[in-house]
Amino acid sequence: MTRGYIVPIGGGIDKVKEPEVLRRFVSLCGGRKARLVIIPTASGDRSTGPGYEEILLELGVKRAVSVPFESRTDCQREDWLELIREADGVFLTGGNQLRLGTTLGGTPVSTLLRERNADGMHIAGTSAGAAFVSEHMIAYGDEGATPRRRMVTLSPGLGLTNRIIVDQHFRQRDRLGRLLTALAYNPFAIGTGLDEDTAIFIAPDDTLEVVGSGGVTIVDAHDLEFSSVDALKANEPVTLIGIRLHILVAGDGYDLHARRALPAGATRPAASARSARDGTR
Amino acid sequence: MTRGYIVPIGGGIDKVKEPEVLRRFVSLCGGRKARLVIIPTASGDRSTGPGYEEILLELGVKRAVSVPFESRTDCQREDWLELIREADGVFLTGGNQLRLGTTLGGTPVSTLLRERNADGMHIAGTSAGAAFVSEHMIAYGDEGATPRRRMVTLSPGLGLTNRIIVDQHFRQRDRLGRLLTALAYNPFAIGTGLDEDTAIFIAPDDTLEVVGSGGVTIVDAHDLEFSSVDALKANEPVTLIGIRLHILVAGDGYDLHARRALPAGATRPAASARSARDGTR
Repeated sequence: MTRGYIVPIGGGIDKVKEPEVLRRFVSLCGGRKARLVIIPTASGDRSTGPGYEEILLELGVKRAVSVPFESRTDCQREDWLELIREADGVFLTGGNQLRLGTTLGGTPVSTLLRERNADGMHIAGTSAGAAFVSEHMIAYGDEGATPRRRMVTLSPGLGLTNRIIVDQHFRQRDRLGRLLTALAYNPFAIGTGLDEDTAIFIAPDDTLEVVGSGGVTIVDAHDLEFSSVDALKANEPVTLIGIRLHILVAGDGYDLHARRALPAGATRPAASARSARDGTR
Repeated sequence: MTRGYIVPIGGGIDKVKEPEVLRRFVSLCGGRKARLVIIPTASGDRSTGPGYEEILLELGVKRAVSVPFESRTDCQREDWLELIREADGVFLTGGNQLRLGTTLGGTPVSTLLRERNADGMHIAGTSAGAAFVSEHMIAYGDEGATPRRRMVTLSPGLGLTNRIIVDQHFRQRDRLGRLLTALAYNPFAIGTGLDEDTAIFIAPDDTLEVVGSGGVTIVDAHDLEFSSVDALKANEPVTLIGIRLHILVAGDGYDLHARRALPAGATRPAASARSARDGTR
């Protein structure tokens, strides 16, 4: 089995004028044959799901149906689970990512989404939905470019991958500081700060491509030489020495295993053989 | 290959009078044949490593050597990595768990510890060391029994397992509230609140046994019916309905897959066959 794509989107999707991000997701899922499921749980607004149904049907998919899990009991509904079993792709809307965690976490919906993604179904999420796809999710935090010790609160997410920590509305809300703080806690993951109307399409081999009108900030703390996060009190600013930063735009890529940027037009190396263990961290 | 044991300890180990927890760990690692490595990175005190060397040698092990990784550059030291490759068990001392994350995270030390544990080496950690063993680590939080929305800060840990979230000095520091908050974010994990001088020995089949003089509080949020954590502001108290709680003491067990307590003396069911996927969540 080949894993499906994982597609975090930075929020603020252009749905009408130039809906490139959604168009690419639809194409990935099979275009006119695509059967899509929308999970609007993060949103408190009951018109969110039907709104996406309409937009996706206009983009020409075969089926687009919203399954509005609002409670943990809803997550047992066999008819809605069946729709996920039949889907080519699932789309998680924006809203509040803690609503996704506390409602779907540990239920058959989460298990099924991980199983189906491992078997080839594609999963996209925008804003709160983007934060949720990873194992380590930014639940909330403060604005600003300087990392501070208590600036960010992480929580367990859906767990499709643990190679990245996603932040969204990135430049729009000045979130570099909180993403740096999250990486200072443990530099193993790669920070991906997604601007609005911008997505990363993470392929089964864990290379990604940027799609959309904004930029993606990649924060790689692998070669971090020094961090003061363990020595601070309260909300003091953090010293971090040796962070690598890349700004990527549409067409650029990045290899999450090799930690190497792949500018648009550069020849991509063939995916090398990797042990199963590599995938877990 | 059979995974090694994972042994989180709640801090405050009795090292002299009745060192049952350390004795059991030494016995697990081979007793007189055991080659142990101590990682004192969490501690700011340079006498911590040598202190544990002395205690473990008195308990009769063949080798007990401290490898004091203080910087990320230290984590490249081939001679120290070689000692971990030869070890039957590794012991992570107490101190500050963020020092473990920010120093060892994403380095060859973390990778090697996960690989060796997967291959059968046992890993114990006390206090900060206990928090660090899991994928989701409590970095810090507030005291008190009532969960509040911003009461706890999670960060990525070493990642030997993601089935549990560990808290330590549990009753001594009144930490039920922050453990409940962590589970409210995403109820998939099982909360294990470890009292001082008390350990859980997690076997390769993910059943655990309690060892030591105190108690272990198991918090199971799998059947959570309602949580308000997504609807709150600032640090308001959280409504949680449907939490299951167990208090276990020495000799009692718990099956992390079946989510079932196994009181001392009760016959344990044979470990059932499980798919590889089960182990990941």
